[in-house]
Amino acid sequence: MGQVARAESLAAFIEQARLRVDRALDAWLPAPPACPAIVSEAMRYSVFAGGKRLRPILTLAAADAVARQIESRSTSGSAGAGPGAIDLALPAACAIELIHTYSLIHDDLPAMDDDTLRRGRPTLHVVYGDGVAILAGDALQAEAFGLLAREPETREAGLAMRKLRVAALVAEAAGAAGMVGGQAIDLQAAGQVPGYGLVLDSTSLEGMHRQKTGALIRASAAAGAVMAGGDEEAVDAADRWAADVGLAFQIVDDILDVEGSAGDLGKTAGKDAARDKPTYPALFGIDRSRTLARECLDRSRSTLARAALGAGWLHEIAEWVVSRRN
Amino acid sequence: MGQVARAESLAAFIEQARLRVDRALDAWLPAPPACPAIVSEAMRYSVFAGGKRLRPILTLAAADAVARQIESRSTSGSAGAGPGAIDLALPAACAIELIHTYSLIHDDLPAMDDDTLRRGRPTLHVVYGDGVAILAGDALQAEAFGLLAREPETREAGLAMRKLRVAALVAEAAGAAGMVGGQAIDLQAAGQVPGYGLVLDSTSLEGMHRQKTGALIRASAAAGAVMAGGDEEAVDAADRWAADVGLAFQIVDDILDVEGSAGDLGKTAGKDAARDKPTYPALFGIDRSRTLARECLDRSRSTLARAALGAGWLHEIAEWVVSRRN
Repeated sequence: MGQVARAESLAAFIEQARLRVDRALDAWLPAPPACPAIVSEAMRYSVFAGGKRLRPILTLAAADAVARQIESRSTSGSAGAGPGAIDLALPAACAIELIHTYSLIHDDLPAMDDDTLRRGRPTLHVVYGDGVAILAGDALQAEAFGLLAREPETREAGLAMRKLRVAALVAEAAGAAGMVGGQAIDLQAAGQVPGYGLVLDSTSLEGMHRQKTGALIRASAAAGAVMAGGDEEAVDAADRWAADVGLAFQIVDDILDVEGSAGDLGKTAGKDAARDKPTYPALFGIDRSRTLARECLDRSRSTLARAALGAGWLHEIAEWVVSRRN
Repeated sequence: MGQVARAESLAAFIEQARLRVDRALDAWLPAPPACPAIVSEAMRYSVFAGGKRLRPILTLAAADAVARQIESRSTSGSAGAGPGAIDLALPAACAIELIHTYSLIHDDLPAMDDDTLRRGRPTLHVVYGDGVAILAGDALQAEAFGLLAREPETREAGLAMRKLRVAALVAEAAGAAGMVGGQAIDLQAAGQVPGYGLVLDSTSLEGMHRQKTGALIRASAAAGAVMAGGDEEAVDAADRWAADVGLAFQIVDDILDVEGSAGDLGKTAGKDAARDKPTYPALFGIDRSRTLARECLDRSRSTLARAALGAGWLHEIAEWVVSRRN
């Protein structure tokens, strides 16, 4: 915790954050005999599939940045608020990763994007069948909210209120007004809902991404800020910072889909174009898309500076997101 | 509220409970422009499909019974705790109905039970396609937990703790150790998971039902008891009472599947036998199955008596469950 919060480089912070998230997920996920072996196996197949853990990293980094802000403002100058913030935010970080994982499982189904390969491995439904894949996704969403309700254990009113606030914001980000709504628009745009087709222009494309991936990315950072005890300004800044980071992430994703090879990405490259999905490069070209991503990065940095959240790793994480190659 | 809690007959209690639940669901479910029209339409198609609202009725009735118990013990003899209990429990009642609804949508999918008719209407995936049905189910689960986290609005520590406890117990009942786990065992027993087949005997059949339908039914009653401020004994009694009611419900369901016509049930009768699903009548015969259901009812009555939860509608609800014809 102390060590994670005070890592000496972004690489060390990310490595330690991933390690803590992986250990916590392993401990918190239900296992036999509490649940059937097949559900446990299927959940773990997807949860431990080598994901980047971007969302939990945002959660823990936002908690750390808020803790540093609170420390710097405390008259005593003590480091009291710091080390505990990552601990407090860890359940939210894990819960959001479970939500993200369930969404990938369901999006990969034949009835949705019909992907057979993810992170270089067969997708869950290819291995266990569609029925088990649907159920494993459903279970992961339930476990996510169970985790938010149970952890960290507390009878303290302030912390209970923070947990409820995080559960509410994660639910909104994951539900019909957020991630699921965005995926529905994506399905409609891909012509997969007879009688409910949609054609996206650049504005509605951005709106779709804001819901489909942006909402949960924003919730990731906001949840970290809430759990660390940030004030309204800090929570709002974490949310707006993450909105820009999420948009940049999506633009880069689209660029990589055009440029990348299946080997680099661990998934089928060129798939968006093959399915006639609107993408940033298709609408704006590669160069203008890169500029748009860079503008997101600049805006996100200003947000941090104005809210005194510049200490910690948030800006470096934004740079990592924009410069990533897979 | 006062009116519902103090209805003069079971029929009046149930009617008022259904009305309140339907109104609250209508108000709490997201709608355009907050979410895409197709997701809203699909959610509402299934939520307002004429379900019995059994689970929310259990929640509100348990809250009412606990409130009556608390009133009867208060030295002042005032009715202070009563009328508010139904209000406090209404969000949990609605959340559990949303979870139940999502589970029906997903269970009906071709990859699961492949049902095309429910409550006399085409199932959701028949109308909107599998993709939208999966998404609508996913959204309903998220909305359920959002509702539990947000409602009833409070900054009071005691009530916040009750909400967190209910969210945790609903998540456990809905997840891998509960409803989803039971459905996975059901899929395996139906031979739908290649390489993971299961043969159920009477013990494992009961275990499957305890998870698939029993867990959420128990959570329904326990949630009502928690929200009404019941002590541990009351919460535990509500939980055990509902375990017996849930088992009786399942046995009666199996009997109706053998005896009923599609018209009465609003779904395809004889489907279990056609699919070689193990059922109570298949394992024990109709007469012994009826006796088993009756034994559940007797046990559930003793539980109420021992915990001083006999005032209110819980026992009459148990009788209604056992004697229902559809």
